[in-house]
Amino acid sequence: MESLKLGNHAHQKRIEATSAYMKKLFIMPDSSDRFVEFGIHLLDMIHDFFKEKGGIHSSVSIEELVEIFNKTDIPCSPMLIKDVLSEIKNNVIKHSVKVANPYYIGHMTSAIPYFMILLEMIAVSLNQNQVKIESAKASSLVEREFLCWMHRLVYNNTDQFYAANVQNPNIALGNITSDGTISNLTALTLAMAKAFPADGKAFRGVRIEGLVRALDYYGYRQAKVLVSKRGHYSICKAGTILGIGEKGVAHVPVHPCEHKIDISRLYQIIERTRRKDKLVGKPTKFVAIVGIAGTTETGNIDDLDELARVSEEIGTHFHVDAAWGGGALLMDAEREMMKGIEKADTVSLDAHKLLFAPNSMGICLFKNDRDSKLLYHTSNYIIRKGSIDQGRFTIEGSRQFASLKPWASLKVLGKNGYRLIFAHARKLQSTFVDLVEKDPLFELLNRPQLYIINYRFVPEELKTELDTLMQNPKQNAEKITALNRMINTMNIELHKTIREHDTSFVSRTRLESTCYAPRKIVVLRAITVNPNTEPYMLRKVLNEHRSMGIRIWEEMKGTIDRCGQECGHSVSAR
Amino acid sequence: MESLKLGNHAHQKRIEATSAYMKKLFIMPDSSDRFVEFGIHLLDMIHDFFKEKGGIHSSVSIEELVEIFNKTDIPCSPMLIKDVLSEIKNNVIKHSVKVANPYYIGHMTSAIPYFMILLEMIAVSLNQNQVKIESAKASSLVEREFLCWMHRLVYNNTDQFYAANVQNPNIALGNITSDGTISNLTALTLAMAKAFPADGKAFRGVRIEGLVRALDYYGYRQAKVLVSKRGHYSICKAGTILGIGEKGVAHVPVHPCEHKIDISRLYQIIERTRRKDKLVGKPTKFVAIVGIAGTTETGNIDDLDELARVSEEIGTHFHVDAAWGGGALLMDAEREMMKGIEKADTVSLDAHKLLFAPNSMGICLFKNDRDSKLLYHTSNYIIRKGSIDQGRFTIEGSRQFASLKPWASLKVLGKNGYRLIFAHARKLQSTFVDLVEKDPLFELLNRPQLYIINYRFVPEELKTELDTLMQNPKQNAEKITALNRMINTMNIELHKTIREHDTSFVSRTRLESTCYAPRKIVVLRAITVNPNTEPYMLRKVLNEHRSMGIRIWEEMKGTIDRCGQECGHSVSAR
Repeated sequence: MESLKLGNHAHQKRIEATSAYMKKLFIMPDSSDRFVEFGIHLLDMIHDFFKEKGGIHSSVSIEELVEIFNKTDIPCSPMLIKDVLSEIKNNVIKHSVKVANPYYIGHMTSAIPYFMILLEMIAVSLNQNQVKIESAKASSLVEREFLCWMHRLVYNNTDQFYAANVQNPNIALGNITSDGTISNLTALTLAMAKAFPADGKAFRGVRIEGLVRALDYYGYRQAKVLVSKRGHYSICKAGTILGIGEKGVAHVPVHPCEHKIDISRLYQIIERTRRKDKLVGKPTKFVAIVGIAGTTETGNIDDLDELARVSEEIGTHFHVDAAWGGGALLMDAEREMMKGIEKADTVSLDAHKLLFAPNSMGICLFKNDRDSKLLYHTSNYIIRKGSIDQGRFTIEGSRQFASLKPWASLKVLGKNGYRLIFAHARKLQSTFVDLVEKDPLFELLNRPQLYIINYRFVPEELKTELDTLMQNPKQNAEKITALNRMINTMNIELHKTIREHDTSFVSRTRLESTCYAPRKIVVLRAITVNPNTEPYMLRKVLNEHRSMGIRIWEEMKGTIDRCGQECGHSVSAR
Repeated sequence: MESLKLGNHAHQKRIEATSAYMKKLFIMPDSSDRFVEFGIHLLDMIHDFFKEKGGIHSSVSIEELVEIFNKTDIPCSPMLIKDVLSEIKNNVIKHSVKVANPYYIGHMTSAIPYFMILLEMIAVSLNQNQVKIESAKASSLVEREFLCWMHRLVYNNTDQFYAANVQNPNIALGNITSDGTISNLTALTLAMAKAFPADGKAFRGVRIEGLVRALDYYGYRQAKVLVSKRGHYSICKAGTILGIGEKGVAHVPVHPCEHKIDISRLYQIIERTRRKDKLVGKPTKFVAIVGIAGTTETGNIDDLDELARVSEEIGTHFHVDAAWGGGALLMDAEREMMKGIEKADTVSLDAHKLLFAPNSMGICLFKNDRDSKLLYHTSNYIIRKGSIDQGRFTIEGSRQFASLKPWASLKVLGKNGYRLIFAHARKLQSTFVDLVEKDPLFELLNRPQLYIINYRFVPEELKTELDTLMQNPKQNAEKITALNRMINTMNIELHKTIREHDTSFVSRTRLESTCYAPRKIVVLRAITVNPNTEPYMLRKVLNEHRSMGIRIWEEMKGTIDRCGQECGHSVSAR
């Protein structure tokens, strides 16, 4: 084995490829000592990266990075491991995003417990392939046990049910997937199979016969999925893949400010569709209603109980996309907010979000254990009929042993540990809300539920004007629009400044469902789930953003005044 | 931080959940020493696992494992990390499948270079999310550079093309996916979009309008994908997801023995479809022809040049599923076998197969850089219009930094290193073929190309009889069928015995395309890509299998003789 000191990146050595050397790379060294030494260097490196001060995204520009990563062909000669690690250290790690930084509060994945690194080492060393029991023995059973835990978390069925099914090889309580998008795709694939089932007569089910024949056979004019306008883009993507198209996904408006599906508008859409059905002479098949817990942009939760009722009423599959919120079911208060989720036929839930596993692992749960059979498939060389392979039910084929990580994490942290983490997230949320609400220069634009806060910077003078105008919103519609447009520009500018400053990070989106609906409002988006974030840090972040906002506004005002003098308009008139 | 000695599994301690403890778990310890100590224990553990003698699959029964993994609820109190690791050691690692064992020659994933563990540690520590540049800076560029390497490996376009596109943010040369199945789904989703494009007038493309309207608008009666009978089951699965159904995937017979698509049969199917089209008065849209390099069961490669020609002739997308063989393009001789792959519009390729990355990572390459735009999507909070996020083109959403592993591996091993590995695989293949062909008790059932050998055990007396019968196959059809049925039973029994014995592992499948076509023949399947496997081991494996086969045959003969005496039949007559 080669010497361990990380090589000088400038003097990378090309070495000769020999069979003996290649072979050596594929076996663990005779003594673990040398391997461990490598590991130690690496752990030190990782440690340094986490401790390192400086910007969140590294100050390097994309153009500079392009200069580094512009080799267009595979290297010919082997390089020493230490040289490659050294290159990774200097070029990759150094310019990675410090997502674990406590001031990185803009995306859903942030810090993970450090023992995840240890678990991942185990998973990769074992290199099991979950598709088949022949290449994944104990790991198949760990996966099933973990799915049982998740199923109970959501559905809380009886002890007998779980005792009978925790390791029942004939069904699946859920699938482990690569992420929430594939979980949603899995759920909707299942919903399609349920909507157009084999009837034991002339029709063998949509999965065999295809969508055109399915609609024709059952006499439907179209298939529709219903979800709120806050639905994750993966629902639309699923529509584009499943053959119903983006047009097959109807987006139901949400209650302004609350960002929750408007049930009366849902009924309107259903009624309107039925009227059209009558004209055409053929009904629409509603394949699924998708509820959200909580939405990616605002963290708000649909009224799942109501959606379950409507789903039952119109006889459709009820799916809940809890990719974000699912893990928070461990917390009683959060469970209360998600009431009705236990009525969902399928539920998506991401382990790399609120279970704090590394990127990425999704879960798609099936309420009814028999439903998994709707996804069933076999093949000759693998997952033969009568086999107990997990691959029988999944959309993916080869899969790593990803479930080890959340499974072990639920043991190390325990329900009680997770609850403390969510309590902290909740505390951070209320701190942030409080700071925003009390600050005359910020405006809150959602009613935060699951640790996501939408807010924006609004100069006091504009806020006063806006409040006045909003007393007669219809009469002042144009002015309100103009004013919001200016505030939008200002907040895009603010977000860019935050990115350039790089000492904190929040994300940005554009919502049509604020109190200014249907105007599209640019909002900043903070997510308060990093256990390393402290309330004082949030104060610091908002103070910084306020200063930046003020500077931007001063500059804008200067421009506007100059323009105003030239064009004869006042600020408020634009 | 807790003490480091791995806990006694029998005395797992439940500890109290405190906020301070939870917080500690989320930060790297102040000094890396303690973390490293943990790492050392773990590395030792992994080391032991690899060195451990004994069975490949562990002798534990599924029933015994069920007794271990039958907890139906999430634990409440936290457990010490060392206790959880100890539990993993005793219950999970111990009962994992030793896929790196040099006698494990039955599946496509076997040993991986040990430095993959180091690379995975880096990837998980960074926890980048490749969906978006805001959460994946340098790693987005590494991914692009790696995709450029793969694109050149397959398509070998000009230096100018790669210089212009290696970091071109407006397009993607390919997608990183979770596995070959999602790569094939990506390719066929793209093929659908190409088959039913927006026309700038009344039709906005199949992804928006859906399949029913697409067929209607363009006046087609159906959409079809063409693939050989050796096609991976993921092609069929893609059919079930994409709305064309299993029936939308036509399986073309292959040449017996060669297991390659029979081009004349492909034409027959196309012609037959067109005749039917004429009767119905509407044409069929051929969405894609899928070529294979090489097939999962037999490792054989379709005539890709011919398939490219047919695809052009009938105006359809040409996809090559090189999930298995793609990596071997690094080897010139193998490239020659895959001639025509460079004409494919899309190519699937698995990193966890012949690039020797851990489970699992797929790649879907797009020949035409503009094609990636057919998969394009945006959303407000992420992958906004004008962004350079990788998530714009992918079916998945959140993704780990998986490309680091094959990217770094191509540096450490180099093209030259990979070539030596494939040369070794080829040597093992010819050794195995040689042993099987020279052994009167084994029969070879494919012409191995990409390191996969199909063979079976046949007692000498039956082989002689079979050979005689095969001189007049039509006349002796029934007897040939009966004899093969008996040999099938024997080989299923042999495979079970191999599994029970557990000192070596080959897999098993059932092929209709052997020299006995169309009879379904049970074959054993050996895959010779583990760099740790040596020719003498293959001899040992086959010797063992031969002894087992002889024992099984002796027993069978006893039963048959008894039955024969009772029923008055001879062996050959059944």
